Order: sequence, then structure tokens, then C-alpha cells
Amino acid sequence: MSRRAGDVPDLVRRATEADPRAVARLISLVENDSPVLREVAAALAPYGGHAQVVGLTGSPGVGKSTSTSAIVTALRAAGKRVGVLAVDPSSPFSGGALLGDRVRMQDHATDPDVFIRSMASRGQLGGLSAAVPQALRVLDAARCDVVLVETVGVGQAEVEIASLADTTLLVVAPGFGDGIQAAKAGIIEIADVFVVNKADRDGADQVARDLRYMQSLGGRHSVPGAWRPPIVKTVASRGEGVEDVLAALQKHCAWMAQHGELERRRQARAAAEIEAIALGTVQRRFAQVHGSAALSAAAERVVAGETDPYTAADRLVEAL
Amino acid sequence: MSRRAGDVPDLVRRATEADPRAVARLISLVENDSPVLREVAAALAPYGGHAQVVGLTGSPGVGKSTSTSAIVTALRAAGKRVGVLAVDPSSPFSGGALLGDRVRMQDHATDPDVFIRSMASRGQLGGLSAAVPQALRVLDAARCDVVLVETVGVGQAEVEIASLADTTLLVVAPGFGDGIQAAKAGIIEIADVFVVNKADRDGADQVARDLRYMQSLGGRHSVPGAWRPPIVKTVASRGEGVEDVLAALQKHCAWMAQHGELERRRQARAAAEIEAIALGTVQRRFAQVHGSAALSAAAERVVAGETDPYTAADRLVEAL
Repeated sequence: MSRRAGDVPDLVRRATEADPRAVARLISLVENDSPVLREVAAALAPYGGHAQVVGLTGSPGVGKSTSTSAIVTALRAAGKRVGVLAVDPSSPFSGGALLGDRVRMQDHATDPDVFIRSMASRGQLGGLSAAVPQALRVLDAARCDVVLVETVGVGQAEVEIASLADTTLLVVAPGFGDGIQAAKAGIIEIADVFVVNKADRDGADQVARDLRYMQSLGGRHSVPGAWRPPIVKTVASRGEGVEDVLAALQKHCAWMAQHGELERRRQARAAAEIEAIALGTVQRRFAQVHGSAALSAAAERVVAGETDPYTAADRLVEAL
Repeated sequence: MSRRAGDVPDLVRRATEADPRAVARLISLVENDSPVLREVAAALAPYGGHAQVVGLTGSPGVGKSTSTSAIVTALRAAGKRVGVLAVDPSSPFSGGALLGDRVRMQDHATDPDVFIRSMASRGQLGGLSAAVPQALRVLDAARCDVVLVETVGVGQAEVEIASLADTTLLVVAPGFGDGIQAAKAGIIEIADVFVVNKADRDGADQVARDLRYMQSLGGRHSVPGAWRPPIVKTVASRGEGVEDVLAALQKHCAWMAQHGELERRRQARAAAEIEAIALGTVQRRFAQVHGSAALSAAAERVVAGETDPYTAADRLVEAL
């Protein structure tokens, strides 16, 4: 099944025509950090900027997957093409994606205008794999109108997903007080739209009030003229309120475009991506220039208490 | 309250005499990445290698904090000096540590031979803050016999905590089947000791059997002569089985020393730390050499589709 590098332009052409097999193949190429990754990235470059990238995050159990599926259904009803990336950054091992919840996505599995992909891989420097932004580029090139990036993990992943998205959607639910606690100020700061799912349950109003209260405590949302994240109530399992989520996403997108925020976010994202790639290159160069022997010798001296890691690191950099 | 750099040797001397205020002050210095961080690291270098660093990980709800507290109690009964670092890598914001569960640790708050610290900070490159290994060094210099590193987060943090520890302890509990699922092969691979907590509940035997089965599927533990992680049952809230945990920790420590594994792990850890510090230095140099203007210009071209991030990164590295 291997393809030669010469196939890349053809694959990209077919991806821009929304050929599902070409899309799947290109994501595999970027996910496996194959030698043709750079060629793929270069070929994709002209086709970006179409999709609204929506990060979907929240604690386990709040109904993230159900929400994703319901949003996909609503977007499809509106005639939109949709990509879904389910990312599990907790795993440094490939092939270990938690696919259990993905079952819900099978409603969309046969829809040629829905692309669904799970990614389990994780980057060398910790954090999300560099493959995730490239996979987003593939789905963007395939003319997806919206790409939903859902994280399976919690905590740090939430912050990182937000850094990849145009719009970040935080899903909460009544009975997950701990979840909101865990979400902490950081996640509240990062969300552009709040979804209170399972809104038919007791406590949904209280959750919404809690969110509003946390917003009122300050942060970037309280700056005059800033986007004020709406709080949308849903029962995703019955599709209730999902149209309101779509409206909130569109409103946020329009607001960002109007205020130059979309451009600003996308540039910040590109800058972070360039820097991460450059650091990866430098890291590989460390290995080439010094060999593992020099690093091992330095590590030995640190373990023996003869030097400290900062002094050892300085020498490593100087020798570059 | 600020101290001049000249105070560092004095602080380190007092830390080696287990002065709690000096220990607290040094951890604050390394945590805040203060200008004297390098001086602190250099002064600490000769005092390392004493403590057994034990990483404690597991899904929320399995009783991690209770287990930590019970282990501290048992270690204290055995006359050991103990350090506890509770790390919350989900937060990129300082001062946001979840201290709720720390209440349990208040049993030990007045014990001069127990040092407890929460760290919320997170590293620039994602992942754990570079301050964590330095904080470990402070507690090591204070002649702690055991330092417990407990992560508040789940997922990726578990893998990272393991990379900092001599011995990694995975806490599971009946009724947290999802937790074990979430723990996945990666975490099972990384654990050196399994603790089935809440062992008085139904399903504890099944959890132990599940763990044994997952172990039997292969991986590093199945290599002939490899350490075979014991499975210890506890009821941490009543202190039951905690002596067995201590015995398992000691046994693992002895096994590692005998097989050269302790040295190997500590060297790998030092090497990773040196490399991370060196990369941080290079990252700062990127900023100095190029200014944010060059990176912004490159990011603009990527957003405009005129180039791809890999080509842009190559130029950044070349110009270094």
C-alpha cells in the first residue's frame, strides 16, 4: 500500500476534491511523520484557511462525543462539510486511540461529506503531536467548512486544543461539579462558547450561573469590547439546543473576522507551529552533532553531582 | 521578603540541615524560574542521589491523595524523612494548584520531617515544568529518604511523572473500570508497583486479575529477568496494606540497585533534563536573534498559503 513521494501532488489534488481515500491517506502520511511529510505540507499550503476549526473540550462524562455527533448532524443538515479529529494526547503510543465513544460517530461513517479520524500520537516534546495541525490542514484542503477537534484527554490537552482552534467550545454538565472545578480558571479563560449539556437534569441552571459567576471574576472576557462567551444549554442526545450551538459558533466566527481576531489567532498558531518544528530540527541536530555519547557523559556527571543540568546544557548549546 | 543571590549558599546549607523554611524558599526560587535558578542548581548539585523518588499516579477518585498520606504515615513510623510534591501539570497558570485534596496532608503539616509542596506550573514546551526536577533536587538535598511525586492530572502527566521517578506506583480501585481502561497499555507498561486501593470493596479481586492479565499480554515486564511489578491491595483510608506498599517500594529499589537500573534511570532522567534546558535556551535564542518580527512575518506567509510551516522553520533554523 505504500506510495511514492511522486504521488503527493495527486493525493492533494484528490483531497481538494474531497476524495475520502486521499484524505485518509494524507492524514496517515502526516501522522506517521513519514519522509514525505514536508512534501505534503508544501503541497497543502495553498489550500488552507477555509475551515472554521472548532476545539471541543470538557471533562469525561459531560457528553463530549454525543455533542460532537449532534453538532455534526446539525452541520450536515445545514449542508456543511465536516471534519472530526478525535485526539488522545495522553498516549505516547500510536494506535492506542480510545475508540469506544467513537461508536456514536458511526451515524456519520457512511456520509461522504463527513471525515472522521482518531489520532493517538503525541509529540516528542510532550504535548500534542505536530501531526495534529497538519491533519487539520488536510481536512481544510478537503474543503471542510467546519473541523471539530475533540480531545479525549483532560487537563493540559484542553489548553493545547484551544491553541489549535479558531473557536473553543467547553462542554459542561450538571452533576460534574468536580469537572468544573477541574476546569479551573484557565479553561474558563480559554473557552469562546460554553455548552451546558444534559440541560434537562437538575442543576443545569446552577451550572450556568456558576459559569456566569466565574466569567464575572475578570480575565480577558471582561475587557471592554471583548467577546463575551455565550452559554448555550443542550440535550445533545436528543439534539436539543444544538442549533443554538451552531448559531454561537457562527456568531463567534463573524465577531472574530470583524475584529481581526481570526487573523490574529491563525498567525499566532502558525508562529507556534513554525517554532515547534524549528525546535524539533534543533533537537535532531543536537543528536547528530553530539551523538548520544556526549549527552550521556554530561548526564553521568550530573548524576554524580559533579555538575548541574544548567551548566551541562550550556555546554551542549555552546558546542552546537 | 526577597533575598539576594548571595544568600543561595546559605539557603542550600540550611536545606541540607532540613530547615523547612530554607527548603520552601529554594523551591520557590526554582519554581519561579528566578534569575538565581542557575545558582541554586549549581549549589544543589553535590547533594543529590539520596532520596528514592516515587511517582504516584492513577485516575481521579481511586484514592491517590489518601494513599499518599497513608504512605507518608507509614514512612514516618519507620523513621524516614519524606517529601511530597503534588504536581498539577494541567495548569499553565501559577498559583492555581488544586489544594482541596491536600487537606488530607494536614495530618503531616506540623511534622518537621515531612515537606509538602504543591506545584501548578507547567513548562514552556508543554509538559511538566522544568521546576519539578529542581524541586526534587531541593528535597533530595534536604536528606529526604523518599520523595513522593503525586500528579493531580491524568493522562499524559502520568507518563511524564514516571519519567521523573525511580519507582512509579499506579493506584487503581474497583469501580473505576474506566480508569483502568483510560490507563491503557502505556501506563501499565510504566508502573513498577500496582496498588489496588479500596480493596474492601466488591470487585477488588477482579481488578487485580485484570492487571495481571494486562501484564501477561507482554511488554517490558515479560522480558526474562525483568522486574515483575507486584500487585498490592490496600485500604488506604484505614492504613491497611500500606506496609506492603513500603515493602514493594524497598524491594524495587533494591532490585534496581542490583541490576544497575537505578543508575540507568537516573542517567536517562539527567540526559532528558539537560536536553530540555538546552532546548529552552535555543528557544530563547530564536527570540533574541530573530525578534518576533521575523517569526511573525513567516507566520503571515503561512497563513496566506505562500509557504508551509516546515519550509518556514527551516529558514528560522538556518538563520540561527
